[in-house]
Amino acid sequence: MTKGTKEINADGSFNRQKNRFTTPFGNEKDQLPVEAGRYRLLWSAVCPWAHRSVIVRKVLGLEEVISLGTASPMRPRLPHVDWEFSLDEGGVDPVLGIKYISEIYKKAAPDFTGRPTVPVMVDVKEQKAVNNDYFKLTNYLETVWAPFHKENAPNLYPEHLRAEIDALNDIIFHDVNNGVYKCGFAQSQEAYEAAYDILFARLDELEERLATKRFLFGDYITDSDVRLYATLVRFDAAYYSAFKTNRNRIVDFPNLWGYLRDLYQTPGFGDTTDFHAIKVHYHLSNHIADDDQKGYNILPKGPDLSGLHSQHNRAGLSNKTEKFFIH
Amino acid sequence: MTKGTKEINADGSFNRQKNRFTTPFGNEKDQLPVEAGRYRLLWSAVCPWAHRSVIVRKVLGLEEVISLGTASPMRPRLPHVDWEFSLDEGGVDPVLGIKYISEIYKKAAPDFTGRPTVPVMVDVKEQKAVNNDYFKLTNYLETVWAPFHKENAPNLYPEHLRAEIDALNDIIFHDVNNGVYKCGFAQSQEAYEAAYDILFARLDELEERLATKRFLFGDYITDSDVRLYATLVRFDAAYYSAFKTNRNRIVDFPNLWGYLRDLYQTPGFGDTTDFHAIKVHYHLSNHIADDDQKGYNILPKGPDLSGLHSQHNRAGLSNKTEKFFIH
Repeated sequence: MTKGTKEINADGSFNRQKNRFTTPFGNEKDQLPVEAGRYRLLWSAVCPWAHRSVIVRKVLGLEEVISLGTASPMRPRLPHVDWEFSLDEGGVDPVLGIKYISEIYKKAAPDFTGRPTVPVMVDVKEQKAVNNDYFKLTNYLETVWAPFHKENAPNLYPEHLRAEIDALNDIIFHDVNNGVYKCGFAQSQEAYEAAYDILFARLDELEERLATKRFLFGDYITDSDVRLYATLVRFDAAYYSAFKTNRNRIVDFPNLWGYLRDLYQTPGFGDTTDFHAIKVHYHLSNHIADDDQKGYNILPKGPDLSGLHSQHNRAGLSNKTEKFFIH
Repeated sequence: MTKGTKEINADGSFNRQKNRFTTPFGNEKDQLPVEAGRYRLLWSAVCPWAHRSVIVRKVLGLEEVISLGTASPMRPRLPHVDWEFSLDEGGVDPVLGIKYISEIYKKAAPDFTGRPTVPVMVDVKEQKAVNNDYFKLTNYLETVWAPFHKENAPNLYPEHLRAEIDALNDIIFHDVNNGVYKCGFAQSQEAYEAAYDILFARLDELEERLATKRFLFGDYITDSDVRLYATLVRFDAAYYSAFKTNRNRIVDFPNLWGYLRDLYQTPGFGDTTDFHAIKVHYHLSNHIADDDQKGYNILPKGPDLSGLHSQHNRAGLSNKTEKFFIH
């Protein structure tokens, strides 16, 4: 990975590629029709961008409506960066019959030369990638997919909060979700330190926000909490060392740590979190370009994550018995 | 660095090279004569093996008796592993006139092909390395060098405790001081995990020991504390990430953390600890073989080490006002 290539700016800072497939889901012309059984969500348990969609799919009860294909945490050593279905029998996704996620990207766009990413929604009928817009995907699941939500599904994206959620999501994206990658993929000391300072300034701010609120918007879990969770839960196990985001760990922030435990212990969150996959990926197999494979071959045994199961003492911040808005 | 080479066993475990120059100091025949102004101690602030000698030299007031030469934390990229005097004017040690520590090894033993290590005591009169026995060097300073100690110098190696100190030093050496290197330099997952388990089992044991004792042998600092300190103070800043010793950090052990702060705040300890050097070395420049240079080029900005200056609350474990045995 050298400076001035596709995803590294001339100053050594990381510049994440844009999503290729961004047609929205919906029931209007030129939108992706919302249909049960039509789509397959491809993810890897390592990926924070994909994890958020999988959490929302589970919390909203969309598991029978949108099927799930799981790529391996270990990326194959191919001439290009890819995701592989080596966890499946025969190394092939049982529904799509593909070995690599790039195949489904190429079916949709033969000229595609970027990194194939997860999450990606695949139209099973047409056998091609139709949406890899990780930024908006949870919002589609929360809104236009509502007719398929389970009974009494929570409302993660209430209309009266949408503008505020969107604004906070933007901040969380730039400074935290992608912020850790800006630290880890920086190719200059200056770019790394700039990203590090912004990341921890933002975590300090979120720490303060969570001193008086159980969740980011008060008593109830929203889409923003899902997004923050995906980064926080990977922080101590992966980013702290592998991405050098090591001013503090999350366990050192009393409120963020309590908040993380609270979410982790909520159905849909901890039960979709696979630390083995996360550690294997970030420590052994993470790279954005083909010439960027580090010589790591030892998987760190730590850290001790047992604290995630300990009591969180956050309930006192709320007088509600439910953690979710219910429609 | 490949398996089966000099310092890596066939099973991937690290096997530290033996010291070459081990003639003892003393006033008997065939010993190195104890003389003020005759020797120069070469160290690098990064090195835990050298740091212990520098701590003891300072605690005992031997600074005017044995001079100190300081090699850079960044190892040069030579055809061989070496230590370099690039911190000195002209890149040359002002007393010995050498650029690399290997020069002084070769003067003593032209056939020397190992890694030149610090600490090494150099006979300035004869301009050659005479002792690099890091394991025993502090004990020489504590015993046969006593005639040169400052007035009221502490006794770090009291006779009635020597057998116990030696026994504990052996354990600290194998499981902790060298234990972190066994984790960091392991070339197989099994060797790494075995070293990791032994290291943390031993830290758990020391944590328990320090619950009721202010220092390892009770009220007073001994040679064993110096040895344990050298590893503990580097742990969170370097080993945790760079050597994958990441079950817990030292700040996560209440007693070890209080003990570390107590020592850090003692003259001779914190004031000889250079975190910038330590971080630069372990994250950017640490390697044991010439083909083992990792592609790191970013220095982690963390961790936050400000806690080392915080109150340690260990004094209550002792009813003594002094931290040292005084002769």
